[in-house]
Amino acid sequence: MRVEVWGDINCPWCYIGKARFEQALAGFEHRADVEVVHRSFELDPRASRAARPLIPLLAAKYGLSLEQAEAAEARIAENARGEGLPYLSEGRDAANSFDMHRLLHFAKDQGRQAELLDVLYRANFADERSAFAAGRLVELAVEAGLDGEAAAAVLADPEAYADAVREDEATASAMGATGVPFFVLDRRLGVSGAQPVETFARALEQAWESRLPAPLIPVGGGDAEACGPDGCELPQQ
Amino acid sequence: MRVEVWGDINCPWCYIGKARFEQALAGFEHRADVEVVHRSFELDPRASRAARPLIPLLAAKYGLSLEQAEAAEARIAENARGEGLPYLSEGRDAANSFDMHRLLHFAKDQGRQAELLDVLYRANFADERSAFAAGRLVELAVEAGLDGEAAAAVLADPEAYADAVREDEATASAMGATGVPFFVLDRRLGVSGAQPVETFARALEQAWESRLPAPLIPVGGGDAEACGPDGCELPQQ
Repeated sequence: MRVEVWGDINCPWCYIGKARFEQALAGFEHRADVEVVHRSFELDPRASRAARPLIPLLAAKYGLSLEQAEAAEARIAENARGEGLPYLSEGRDAANSFDMHRLLHFAKDQGRQAELLDVLYRANFADERSAFAAGRLVELAVEAGLDGEAAAAVLADPEAYADAVREDEATASAMGATGVPFFVLDRRLGVSGAQPVETFARALEQAWESRLPAPLIPVGGGDAEACGPDGCELPQQ
Repeated sequence: MRVEVWGDINCPWCYIGKARFEQALAGFEHRADVEVVHRSFELDPRASRAARPLIPLLAAKYGLSLEQAEAAEARIAENARGEGLPYLSEGRDAANSFDMHRLLHFAKDQGRQAELLDVLYRANFADERSAFAAGRLVELAVEAGLDGEAAAAVLADPEAYADAVREDEATASAMGATGVPFFVLDRRLGVSGAQPVETFARALEQAWESRLPAPLIPVGGGDAEACGPDGCELPQQ
């Protein structure tokens, strides 16, 4: 069974929803048979690449006072801490996340995506040092078990894994997702938002029970060479 | 798009079918968006773990004379060479492939499955040294870029990735596969056997054209916290 999770490192409800989903997964009987894949979704593809303080950015973007933006962040922080997640509600900054998504696709190829995703969320939401500081992504890649030089090469080439990010975003759009987190189970069931743990648990059970694949549409004839219980190609006897 | 390929390292038509599929994939416009996954299928789960000469084994198993078994192997070798694949039709041996499949699942976790699959097929079909010799699998794992100690630890623990192998086999069985190679595109299209390159090309085109996902079944309400174009949780204004 495969669960694809669309999210952005800049998205606090993705960070919180991930923890809730993982709690449901930890209690799921067939968890060893569940593959979890991160899919890219940029909340703000036009965000500046230069890191800026988050609160004034939110205030300007959504027409809030600084106090309102701070209050919103404080409420999110409370939710995060309720899930046992560290969360700095002050002093964080934000920037374009495209490079993070490219790096997550590289990490997928290296079998280290889950590790890097954890490291990136923690770095963005809970670390006094900015995840967007120069050179920081390479450090974080190494922390996730990736080769630093290879990660630096991916980051230095703006086209590396760029199409993979865009393809994820096009798929999300084709499935009707307008926000994140967005969880898709075996491309059949969808869960939108940071739902309660029980909802994720129900979705996992439901996907598991209905996981028997629909009949396949055959392409090509049934007479191609194959090996089976009676052996491979046998001589005419 | 995802192509899952059920096969066994002991299956010559899997080795040949893989080459034909890869030729079709190399000519496929959207190849960068195709993920290929190996799935386990043991042709003979009851095969002995001790390596034995292949020709007498085939003869005994399928009630052939040694000459008939040799002729069958020679015909397969001709097909393999026709695809540019090295193939030893004499002197090879065979044994249980369960450990190879477990190792392929470990390699998947490490982002090295495709590399290991190539190495294993070559070792089994084209190398004078037996792929089933003691210690050989660890050498082959290292050749595929895996950590030798970690690979040895997986091989030493008979339960490591054993359920993943069995789950693949159960899925193949649920989809009606009785032989391999068996190719499944996005769990919608199926291609059985070492079909011609053109059949694989047609299957890829057909899967691509029909890849827009079916509507998802939503689980949970539509009101869970999420981040979208209008921001994350906003204060009541």
